[in-house]
Amino acid sequence: MHVRALEWGPSGVLRILDQTLLPREERWLDLDRVESVAEAIRMLRVRGAPAIGVAAAMGLAASLRRSMELPRERFLQLVDASAAELAAARPTAVNLAWAMERMRRAARAAKGGGASVCAALHEEAEAIRAEDEGMCRAMGEAGQAVVDAQAHRRTGAQAQSRADARARTSHPAPRTLRILTHCNTGALATAGMGTALAVVYVAHERGVPLQVWVDETRPLLQGSRLTAWELAKAGIPHTVLPDSAAASLMAALEVDLVLVGADRIARNGDTANKVGTYPLAIAARHHGIPLYVVAPSSTFDPACPDGAAIPIEQRAGAEVTRPFGVPIAPEGSPVFNPAFDVTPALLVSGWITERGVLGPPFD
Amino acid sequence: MHVRALEWGPSGVLRILDQTLLPREERWLDLDRVESVAEAIRMLRVRGAPAIGVAAAMGLAASLRRSMELPRERFLQLVDASAAELAAARPTAVNLAWAMERMRRAARAAKGGGASVCAALHEEAEAIRAEDEGMCRAMGEAGQAVVDAQAHRRTGAQAQSRADARARTSHPAPRTLRILTHCNTGALATAGMGTALAVVYVAHERGVPLQVWVDETRPLLQGSRLTAWELAKAGIPHTVLPDSAAASLMAALEVDLVLVGADRIARNGDTANKVGTYPLAIAARHHGIPLYVVAPSSTFDPACPDGAAIPIEQRAGAEVTRPFGVPIAPEGSPVFNPAFDVTPALLVSGWITERGVLGPPFD
Repeated sequence: MHVRALEWGPSGVLRILDQTLLPREERWLDLDRVESVAEAIRMLRVRGAPAIGVAAAMGLAASLRRSMELPRERFLQLVDASAAELAAARPTAVNLAWAMERMRRAARAAKGGGASVCAALHEEAEAIRAEDEGMCRAMGEAGQAVVDAQAHRRTGAQAQSRADARARTSHPAPRTLRILTHCNTGALATAGMGTALAVVYVAHERGVPLQVWVDETRPLLQGSRLTAWELAKAGIPHTVLPDSAAASLMAALEVDLVLVGADRIARNGDTANKVGTYPLAIAARHHGIPLYVVAPSSTFDPACPDGAAIPIEQRAGAEVTRPFGVPIAPEGSPVFNPAFDVTPALLVSGWITERGVLGPPFD
Repeated sequence: MHVRALEWGPSGVLRILDQTLLPREERWLDLDRVESVAEAIRMLRVRGAPAIGVAAAMGLAASLRRSMELPRERFLQLVDASAAELAAARPTAVNLAWAMERMRRAARAAKGGGASVCAALHEEAEAIRAEDEGMCRAMGEAGQAVVDAQAHRRTGAQAQSRADARARTSHPAPRTLRILTHCNTGALATAGMGTALAVVYVAHERGVPLQVWVDETRPLLQGSRLTAWELAKAGIPHTVLPDSAAASLMAALEVDLVLVGADRIARNGDTANKVGTYPLAIAARHHGIPLYVVAPSSTFDPACPDGAAIPIEQRAGAEVTRPFGVPIAPEGSPVFNPAFDVTPALLVSGWITERGVLGPPFD
């Protein structure tokens, strides 16, 4: 079973697991102010494109309870201002803007004063949370077509490469499927079992033998800190590696499939995801290894024609030069620290969504 | 001017700058025991393929002074045993084995007892050091052909892409050449001005405007800790980035040339270098950006037919999971931590050596 990133706390507050402290400490935070929810998103206490959309929705509903005595129009203005503040906390993930837009609409659609609009906001936030949870499982299940195709392909490849006579029989023993992943796309990134990792969790439930290669994912190490922690909790075999060692594994024929998440997908399929996804996609293509993006519908942005139109968040240089407060570069060295990169659609084998495995154009 | 990695200390000891403490502290260590020289090499207090060959030679000569009263045969046995111990400190770099073999031969060629063999060892170690220093400059100068070709190509490309009429005149203003590099291949990696960075230093001396993109180089961060420190000391403009952000720079047309070092080069040109070089070479090829390997003759191993024959050192998982003693992955997560990877010759544009720009076969 998988862990959880967030839940409703007592009397409707947003409760999140502070991911900046993992894997050393599991500390839950109760949030019920717009500023503290925005801070948690900005500081990556809650992160992962789907999770920040859900957290912002739940946090918005939780925060506005204290203002529910306001008259309708004043309350709606407050909804708009608060939603805008939360949407601005991180610019790249489209889910966040999408969730805030949905909350604004739910507020306008509700009748009555602050109290009833507030109740509608809670209902909408819970709907967004529950839908995300359901979409995670649906993505995990949709991905099994890819898992089965790769497991099959791999059985053939192993039989050939290792001259293993047993595998050449018509009923070979199940082989370990070696999946490489980047960043954290699991339960910690969503309100459910994850996006790319949902495919791993469902395959594990089905008894597919797995080995997960976990890119550590510099600079913030979401792979080693979060993905390895999740997989260890779930009892799924995994190995952590520096991002730059992934190509060595590919060259050694140790990777069957690459699964990554997404923060925004343009209409033509160009995909923004955690920095390091693009070089991984180039290397996967170089080695003939399929790479699939796993993401819910809310990650697709039909208003965005292609990757060039996706804003890429630049983060503080200290993430690179002062990890854990330790200075590892000379004072004052300039830093290039984009949070994301864009993988052109041509390097992606397919997009696994809650509606199945799709391809562009995404209208 | 560049910094120094090592020098002769008082009364012939080996003096090295402890690179594990950079950039926070500049501490010099005086070494005159085989075990402490081997420890310094194993722990990367001195690192870089050329520098560890030089350090082992100087350290061997320095350490054996205390045994110079031994009779000839006993002394020669001690030379062999000590050289073998030092050669085993790191398995991938061929320079180390090459330097130890050279020292063994010099010992055998010397006449007389321990004292005169010891004097010959000092002479040979100094010759190895001085040759390395000279080869660094020669490589730096040989690389200017590549610098000029890229600077020229870049001027044309910029004129085209930016429609800059001024650059279309027959005498365009000099443009900044953007060089991306990995790991540390500078003065800290050699007894001179470096290998790949020697090309940068000489270009800087010649007044070529430069921007150096410095891969931080996980897990041990030789890029941010050492290369950025060297370049800052030399006043050369540079920017540090996570290894996984290099491809984003390439896609944004911000890289003109990739320069890397080497730890061992097979006869067919397959090149072992710091892990992360191979994915960089794949990405450079994908973007049509030239990648040159810069290395002295001692890095070429004609006894090694191709990359498959190069032993790849696996290092401790804690380098990945406990940087600076901070646990960043769950206890017990397995780790894949190869120190090097192999870049196939086909992905290398050329090999810059002290004898010029060469191509395989290297006999």
